Amino acid sequence: MDAQHRLIDDGAVAVRGERIVGVGKRANIDKQFQAAHRLDRPEALLMPGLINTHTHAAMSLLRGIADDLHLQDWLEKYIFPAEAKNVTPDFVLWGTRLACLEMMLSGTTTFVDMYYFEDRVAQATKEAGMRGVLGETILKFKSPDSATPADALALTERFLREYRGDSLIVAAPAPHAIYTNDDATLRNARKLADKYGVPLVIHLSETKRENDDSIQTRGMTPTRLLDILGVLNGPTIAAHGVWLDDRDMQILKAHGTGIAHCPSSNMKLASGVAPVVKLLNLGITVGVGTDGPAGSNNDFDLMEEMNLAADLQKVSTGDPTVLNAEQAVAMATIAGARVAGLEKEIGSLESGKRADLIALRLDRPHAVPLYNVYSQIVYALKGSDVQDVVVNGRAIVRDGRSLTLDQTLVLSKAKEYAAKVVASLK
Amino acid sequence: MDAQHRLIDDGAVAVRGERIVGVGKRANIDKQFQAAHRLDRPEALLMPGLINTHTHAAMSLLRGIADDLHLQDWLEKYIFPAEAKNVTPDFVLWGTRLACLEMMLSGTTTFVDMYYFEDRVAQATKEAGMRGVLGETILKFKSPDSATPADALALTERFLREYRGDSLIVAAPAPHAIYTNDDATLRNARKLADKYGVPLVIHLSETKRENDDSIQTRGMTPTRLLDILGVLNGPTIAAHGVWLDDRDMQILKAHGTGIAHCPSSNMKLASGVAPVVKLLNLGITVGVGTDGPAGSNNDFDLMEEMNLAADLQKVSTGDPTVLNAEQAVAMATIAGARVAGLEKEIGSLESGKRADLIALRLDRPHAVPLYNVYSQIVYALKGSDVQDVVVNGRAIVRDGRSLTLDQTLVLSKAKEYAAKVVASLK
Repeated sequence: MDAQHRLIDDGAVAVRGERIVGVGKRANIDKQFQAAHRLDRPEALLMPGLINTHTHAAMSLLRGIADDLHLQDWLEKYIFPAEAKNVTPDFVLWGTRLACLEMMLSGTTTFVDMYYFEDRVAQATKEAGMRGVLGETILKFKSPDSATPADALALTERFLREYRGDSLIVAAPAPHAIYTNDDATLRNARKLADKYGVPLVIHLSETKRENDDSIQTRGMTPTRLLDILGVLNGPTIAAHGVWLDDRDMQILKAHGTGIAHCPSSNMKLASGVAPVVKLLNLGITVGVGTDGPAGSNNDFDLMEEMNLAADLQKVSTGDPTVLNAEQAVAMATIAGARVAGLEKEIGSLESGKRADLIALRLDRPHAVPLYNVYSQIVYALKGSDVQDVVVNGRAIVRDGRSLTLDQTLVLSKAKEYAAKVVASLK
Repeated sequence: MDAQHRLIDDGAVAVRGERIVGVGKRANIDKQFQAAHRLDRPEALLMPGLINTHTHAAMSLLRGIADDLHLQDWLEKYIFPAEAKNVTPDFVLWGTRLACLEMMLSGTTTFVDMYYFEDRVAQATKEAGMRGVLGETILKFKSPDSATPADALALTERFLREYRGDSLIVAAPAPHAIYTNDDATLRNARKLADKYGVPLVIHLSETKRENDDSIQTRGMTPTRLLDILGVLNGPTIAAHGVWLDDRDMQILKAHGTGIAHCPSSNMKLASGVAPVVKLLNLGITVGVGTDGPAGSNNDFDLMEEMNLAADLQKVSTGDPTVLNAEQAVAMATIAGARVAGLEKEIGSLESGKRADLIALRLDRPHAVPLYNVYSQIVYALKGSDVQDVVVNGRAIVRDGRSLTLDQTLVLSKAKEYAAKVVASLK
């Protein structure tokens, strides 16, 4: 995923501290470096760690609580009541630990999040040894962690200050969407992002209803509204973008806004099909995301999202040649890094970049034979083929097991929280 | 997946010989039976084995050889030349062994196949200990195993005779499609199926082009043509059914034809979206299938197809409540059994049925918490969660490893064949 999209047979990656210091043929790397520690994976593929550009990690504790429902019923009858009664700092901490376990074991090294008590998300992410662009949610109404938008902005600023300069965490303001925020708060969130030099995270044109309501009440699309308010004047991670029109796309292109495409979620919630081929043709950066696991997915498997991103564009455009496997891999790695504002640090295996990489096993029946590496990754390999994961130079998964989080403890705690959630909804 | 769709907490299944003799609470089963062998899986879900209603198993050896292409280019430039130069009885034998390994390890116990040298498919399937409805391909032109349609019919009849009464294999005639067969051969294939009391396997209305050509050259849709020829007068497994119109659906309903829905394939090849919700509402039986792994999928993971079957209907109808998780599980089990003509023998865990069952692990991060069993199976669990597989009372997978096929040997042979394929296309 460097500029030449080089594929290296019998290759090796040399890591010193937090960074990659050599990528090339194994024989050359062996000559050039003396390894203190060495991991041989002759039957695996080394590639950049996957980047999940849109999650609500802690919602792992609500995985599958309410499926096959209309979005409004789902939110109002299940998710909002469950969140109001259950989301505490500890809920978020344990939920994110569970999510990080699942993400690391399926090859994700960086995720872009949006939730409440995001400082606890940061805590769990650092414990896991993962990288995160972590968006503290800002709403115009009371949320689990803030009584007012002013409180949310103040909480967000404390969070941004705390994690300034962190090597793993980028703390970000995340105004939830245009329909859940007033204009002044949206503007203030942008100012906060600019003050700390971080991206702003927001949902954008996820559903037809969001667009229709915006046009009816504001006389313009959500993208035009954000443009007029100046919210797009700076790095922005916009999730979904299903209902963007041509003029919206021009606006997003002009501002360099990154799109987090979430095919599972858009399909499962029947939100629609994002115009990804059009966005890519315009040169807009598009990554892939899983969205949250409580009704819209229900997992954090980015290997599946890569496959779906390709297949959904093919069937919706009627053209099997669009969004090919190589593009899908790029979306989940280097393009995801661009969406997250981290393309100078991650997204490819190149000397000087942070050492975020994964090894995928090629020794299982579904991985054989191997005619084309990109095809295999996108259309055949699974999250469960992830053998090793390194983030920032640190091994966090070895042979399919987490080295950083205590899986037995996390699963047991997750079950405790689920029992509380069930009791709270009775 | 019995008539009541019973879910049993802390349950057990008792097996004697090839059949299930008890299903219920573990305490009751323990009282009722003295187990000679016992497998305890306290953190797993027991369910009927998955039924893949459409595959070309041996094409595993061509997995990912040519992707992201128009169907015509894919077939004419890659698949047909590769098949003409490589498909021998041994190619089919080893390719099916590879496919069976992948299928059993991801929870499939029965598959409906269509390929050449189908007696070798049967041999590999029996070695694997799996169940198959195995369709010998009949074409109007020369194929890898038959010079003429008459040869193909004769070969098919020998195959049907050989496997009559087999406890694992149903041998079937498989005229490839209307556009690759003349009317007389289609009629003769039906006669052969009737003579041996087996289903007929065929592709039906997979692409818009198939339908357009049929209307242009024959003045009617493929379904109407099959109806007029009498081909649907008996058990029929029709793969795809993407472009069926309302009148076609009435014809299929009247004949009790089963549909093999292949969402990955239909998406990846941009064939279109099958009207599954309409078919189900009409009472037509629809199972799920992976299709072949050479360009149209590229794997045999039925857990993914269940998820996609649900999600694709939701996004294409704009209604997230359609094709819910319980229906998706039914499609992959009891409905698949109906499509295959085996609903009296398999597809549910009930006393008297063949013991075809799988255990899915519930102790991994993506399987926790568990609020709803159907949601978990369809939207969160993976093929790699399959821990144990029993077919016809025989354990063929234990703790994620095949007990019947030699994985090291099969993968090594698959790589040899792939090298030959690459050389043959130079």
